[in-house]
Amino acid sequence: MTTPSGTRPPAVLTAYDCWRLLPTEEVARVAWSGPDGTAIVPVNYTVTHQSLWFRTQPYSALGRQVHGGRVAVEVDHVDHVDKSAWSVVAIGTAQVVDGDEVPDSVLQMRVWVPGPRSLVVRVDPVEVTGRRLWGRADANR
Amino acid sequence: MTTPSGTRPPAVLTAYDCWRLLPTEEVARVAWSGPDGTAIVPVNYTVTHQSLWFRTQPYSALGRQVHGGRVAVEVDHVDHVDKSAWSVVAIGTAQVVDGDEVPDSVLQMRVWVPGPRSLVVRVDPVEVTGRRLWGRADANR
Repeated sequence: MTTPSGTRPPAVLTAYDCWRLLPTEEVARVAWSGPDGTAIVPVNYTVTHQSLWFRTQPYSALGRQVHGGRVAVEVDHVDHVDKSAWSVVAIGTAQVVDGDEVPDSVLQMRVWVPGPRSLVVRVDPVEVTGRRLWGRADANR
Repeated sequence: MTTPSGTRPPAVLTAYDCWRLLPTEEVARVAWSGPDGTAIVPVNYTVTHQSLWFRTQPYSALGRQVHGGRVAVEVDHVDHVDKSAWSVVAIGTAQVVDGDEVPDSVLQMRVWVPGPRSLVVRVDPVEVTGRRLWGRADANR
């Protein structure tokens, strides 16, 4: 079986590093336990007040199923040339937030999907973990 | 609330397109329902015989929890310049596969994390869905 020749193990990221990295990306993957089992969908997101925020349509699976439930939000950055990467996973409860309580930065966040995204969801992480792979020097090429 | 100015909705990908796109990436996110709730982790993967394959450590959370369970595997490609993207989600049951039944392409697949990854997992999707966002011409910039 082919295994990588490098020996440097992935680095476990500190919470500080996770929170430093989270705002640097624009796409997260939200996973949750839906009525048909585990579901996952990519979303644009933003980080404000130590929470993750995203917007969706009220009638989407995410919009209908996520309120009050535990979600896992994954953000990563992959360098296909160096074979380096980092990944951060935030675990928390998703809450639909009413208009008056939505920060301006969330109202103004860029959403790549055209059309209204009127449902605003906030995830307050109770656990944030991450790791980093070191890339070229250690990767099997 | 700021909403994108474009009107072209995301395209729903056909199964053919999903299977055409899946082999073009190297990193997938596997989500499953673990003892503590929904979990998610990025993995290297390969596509062989209309199945998704990845390798992990037997004592990782993924390795310990995933066998026989329903998983959601997400693969995407994000163009940060154009704000275009596609995403494919495959739903299926994960099966740990014994050595003799593992195709050579899986044994030889590139795994970015150094160290042995002796547990081979196959996911036979029962549902494959995807969508494409069109990017610059339609995105809110």
